[in-house]
Amino acid sequence: MDKPYVLGLDMGGTNSVLGIVDARGHVLARTSIKTQQYTDINDYVNALYEEAIKIIVPVGGMEMIRGIGAGAPNANYYSGNIENAANLPWKGIVPFAKLMSEKFGVPCTITNDANAAAMGEMQYGAARGMKNFIMITLGTGVGSGIVIDGKMVYGHDGFAGELGHTKIDRSDKARLCGCGQRGCIEAYASANGVARTAKEILATTTQPTLLRNVEDIDKITSYDVFKAAEEGDEVAKQIFDYTGTLLGQKLADFVAFSAPEAIVLFGGLTKSGHWIMDPIVKALNENVMPIWKNKVKVMFSDLKEADAAVLGASALAWE
Amino acid sequence: MDKPYVLGLDMGGTNSVLGIVDARGHVLARTSIKTQQYTDINDYVNALYEEAIKIIVPVGGMEMIRGIGAGAPNANYYSGNIENAANLPWKGIVPFAKLMSEKFGVPCTITNDANAAAMGEMQYGAARGMKNFIMITLGTGVGSGIVIDGKMVYGHDGFAGELGHTKIDRSDKARLCGCGQRGCIEAYASANGVARTAKEILATTTQPTLLRNVEDIDKITSYDVFKAAEEGDEVAKQIFDYTGTLLGQKLADFVAFSAPEAIVLFGGLTKSGHWIMDPIVKALNENVMPIWKNKVKVMFSDLKEADAAVLGASALAWE
Repeated sequence: MDKPYVLGLDMGGTNSVLGIVDARGHVLARTSIKTQQYTDINDYVNALYEEAIKIIVPVGGMEMIRGIGAGAPNANYYSGNIENAANLPWKGIVPFAKLMSEKFGVPCTITNDANAAAMGEMQYGAARGMKNFIMITLGTGVGSGIVIDGKMVYGHDGFAGELGHTKIDRSDKARLCGCGQRGCIEAYASANGVARTAKEILATTTQPTLLRNVEDIDKITSYDVFKAAEEGDEVAKQIFDYTGTLLGQKLADFVAFSAPEAIVLFGGLTKSGHWIMDPIVKALNENVMPIWKNKVKVMFSDLKEADAAVLGASALAWE
Repeated sequence: MDKPYVLGLDMGGTNSVLGIVDARGHVLARTSIKTQQYTDINDYVNALYEEAIKIIVPVGGMEMIRGIGAGAPNANYYSGNIENAANLPWKGIVPFAKLMSEKFGVPCTITNDANAAAMGEMQYGAARGMKNFIMITLGTGVGSGIVIDGKMVYGHDGFAGELGHTKIDRSDKARLCGCGQRGCIEAYASANGVARTAKEILATTTQPTLLRNVEDIDKITSYDVFKAAEEGDEVAKQIFDYTGTLLGQKLADFVAFSAPEAIVLFGGLTKSGHWIMDPIVKALNENVMPIWKNKVKVMFSDLKEADAAVLGASALAWE
């Protein structure tokens, strides 16, 4: 009998979520471990296996599992390695696919987390049936997965789709990004970027705003700003306009590259609905060539945040 | 017997060059007409046919011709139309592939001129054997052809690869581009862009320079600047540094998109050799993520300028 299930792993800087997925994209069971708790990669793989077995035994054991697909920061599809991931406890080059497949006894394929989300979106989400779209993940960082002609773009070295590290500001005042460069869109449209914008506005104006009530402004999220905007807070609206405008301007560059049918946005920032969508769409259409004006759809992911990554990662295991 | 030849057409704003090409990429014969002389597209197609027949008869007549591949500004691979091309005499939407195949009695496939050049480069030029590269054409405008996984990127609508219209300057002082937008890299790294840079420097400084001898500064080319640089002219070097730096910064964005093995540069600006290459490579490597530093090749096309486009266009006809 063909093995009926695969494992999908969504490895984040904080949590690693593992799910058992069937061929129709149902997540039958899920479990998770804390990524940062394991400073040795072998301990991490062992812990993952122990947790996995608890949900695998009830569905019939490892002989029901065809393979593992994993989405992880800085994961290289070609080599199976995780390479120099800033937000993970393991430094240098980690042969993650090899370690996983040795431990679990089934093939393991990996890709970066944004690519995994894009695959989930293509198979089960807002991009179902689309052959050309760009997925932008707006979380701690800004990630991206690019699909052209129905296929994920990996590029020459497996690292294609680092759109978060294209530049939106080339001036002297450009923000420093976690990657070591200046002016990357990640430094503006990520959760950290939004917190920095809020901080700058609060420090440089005396405008009254609900955001002055946020306890730790360094940890402000787009959701805090959303709540304030919903109550009519002008500063909150200003933050969304600023963030959305920069992101929309940059999306226009991406449209000129691959002429996608749609751009799918995913992650924390999307919970702010029209407050962030309106300035994005406005700036996008103001910055594309006439042939693309009002032609490229911008949409929010319609998958649950946890599911998209697990489902997308699991899709790799069917290949 | 299989028909042994195809026709390749390189339609430019000034000249339309037509060549007979065999399966090994030899241009057996070539001819050309002046594009601007025909304000009616039917007259243009008729004139092209009359010229073509003169070189086709000696190789055995139309029964030896398998099909036509054409590279033209704003040509759409999917629809076969040329749509709203600013530099051509025919406005609106022109069903060019249909008109050509009706007149010649063989199938005609079209793509934009930069894509055609990229196909020529992939089959017969500097990108032979590469599966991931980006071709940038630096001529009257800045065009691009993107190859991912061995395939030309057309996108959802057939217009992918308009990298000349991504933004390098988002400030108030950004230059107006021919496309109606501001700050496009085309307004800086094209022949016109170089002339504008020269003009600005000459108007705002009193530095002595050989370029003050150029008769019509609006028509200055990168080749004029090259000749001056070769004679040690500081202003000429400054123009190359400025142009190359902006272009290299923008290429870094493209690398983050598709992680190409190489970027192949083509067109007038490349004749300036190291004067333009050095600042491009420097700015590129200063603006990519650490994983790509000094990893992406930047190279000049090694096809003759006329041949690349004709050969590339002809490649479409074999498909």
